[in-house]
Amino acid sequence: MKQQGLFITFEGPDGSGKTTQIQLLQKYFQQKGLRCLLSREPGGTEIGEKIRTLLLDKAHTEMDFAAEALLYAAARAQHVAQVIGPALRRGEVVICDRFVDSSIAYQGYGRQLGEVVAQINRFATGELCPDVTFFMQLAPEKARERIKARKCDRLELEQLAFHQRVFAGYQQLEQAEPQRIVAIDASGSIEEIHEIICERMEALLLCR
Amino acid sequence: MKQQGLFITFEGPDGSGKTTQIQLLQKYFQQKGLRCLLSREPGGTEIGEKIRTLLLDKAHTEMDFAAEALLYAAARAQHVAQVIGPALRRGEVVICDRFVDSSIAYQGYGRQLGEVVAQINRFATGELCPDVTFFMQLAPEKARERIKARKCDRLELEQLAFHQRVFAGYQQLEQAEPQRIVAIDASGSIEEIHEIICERMEALLLCR
Repeated sequence: MKQQGLFITFEGPDGSGKTTQIQLLQKYFQQKGLRCLLSREPGGTEIGEKIRTLLLDKAHTEMDFAAEALLYAAARAQHVAQVIGPALRRGEVVICDRFVDSSIAYQGYGRQLGEVVAQINRFATGELCPDVTFFMQLAPEKARERIKARKCDRLELEQLAFHQRVFAGYQQLEQAEPQRIVAIDASGSIEEIHEIICERMEALLLCR
Repeated sequence: MKQQGLFITFEGPDGSGKTTQIQLLQKYFQQKGLRCLLSREPGGTEIGEKIRTLLLDKAHTEMDFAAEALLYAAARAQHVAQVIGPALRRGEVVICDRFVDSSIAYQGYGRQLGEVVAQINRFATGELCPDVTFFMQLAPEKARERIKARKCDRLELEQLAFHQRVFAGYQQLEQAEPQRIVAIDASGSIEEIHEIICERMEALLLCR
C-alpha cells in the first residue's frame, strides 16, 4: 500500500445495511494487518458531534435548508481536518459512513439546492475524494419499511417524495463517476454484499 | 418608506462602540414611530445561538478555519430565513450587529480563506445586501486596548497580525462599495458619531 492511505465511504439510505457492511469491512482490513479507522458523518469530532445534535434534533423544524447544508459542510470540514486527513497521511484505511455524496443527494437533490452544495463541499474538504464509494441501493419505499422499527430523526421523517429525489440523486452521481462509485443491490444477503465489497477491495489493493 | 423595510448593519472590531450606536439608532427610529428590530450575528435565532456558543467557545482550539467560516454562514442563513427576511417583508427596520462583511473581513482576510467566503455567504443569504453599513473604524491596537477589560472570546484572543488583516479587509470592502459602506472614525465622541449616522439615515429615508 502507498503511504497515502485508503479512503472508503458508504452511501445510501438509512436501513440499507451500511453499518453492518462497514463493520465486516473493518474486520477484512484488520485480518490483513492494516490499521482501519471507522467514522461517521455528521460527527466524528467533538465539534462535529455537537453539530450532529443540532442537525438531527426533531425540535428544529424551523431549520432553513441553506443552514442545514452549511452545517453538514462545517461538520465535514472539521472531520477532514482533524480525523480523516491525519489518518490518511499516516497511511491508514479510513472507512466513513456518509461523506460528500450524502450532501449532494440529500441537500442538492432532496432539498433541491442544486450545484452549490458540491461547491461548498469542495471548499469544506479541500477537494478530498474517496478512493471508492459503496452505494447501497435500496428503493425509498423499502428503506422506509426497514427503518420503521427504529427511532427516526428529523431527516428520516421527511416525505417519500424527498427520499425519491435523494435516490435519483445517488443514481446521477453513480452515472457520473462509475470508476469511484460502486452501486450494490442492498436487497442481497449480508454475505453476498460483503463478498462484492471484498472483490472490489482486492482489485483496488492490487492496483496500488 | 417603501413596503420592503430597511436593512442596516454595523461592522468593525469589538470595542469600536457598535452596541452603543445601535441602541441610539433604535431610539432614533422609534421616535419616528417606525418598528425597529435589533439582532446580532452569529446568533439571532435559537439554532443560531447554539452555533454561536460552538463558535465562541474558547475550548474549541482545534476549530478548522473552513468549518468556522461555514458555521458563521449557517447561523446567518438561519437568521435571514427566520428573522431578517420576514421583518423586512413586513416593512420594518432591521439593525444587525455584524453581517456578511464580518465574515469576509474575519474569515476571508483574517483567516486568509479568500473569495470563497463571499460565495458561501451569497448562498447563505440569498444575496440579501444591507441598505447601509456603518463601519466603525478603529485601529486594531486601539480596539485591543478598549476590550482589555472585557472577557475575551476565542476570536478576540487572536494575534494582532490577524486583526490587522481584518482591518485591511474592512477597508477593501469600503473602497469597493462606497455607496453602501459608511466608514466612521470610532475615536469620535458617542454624540458626534450618532449625529453622522442620523445624517446618513435622513438622506437615505428621503430617497425612499
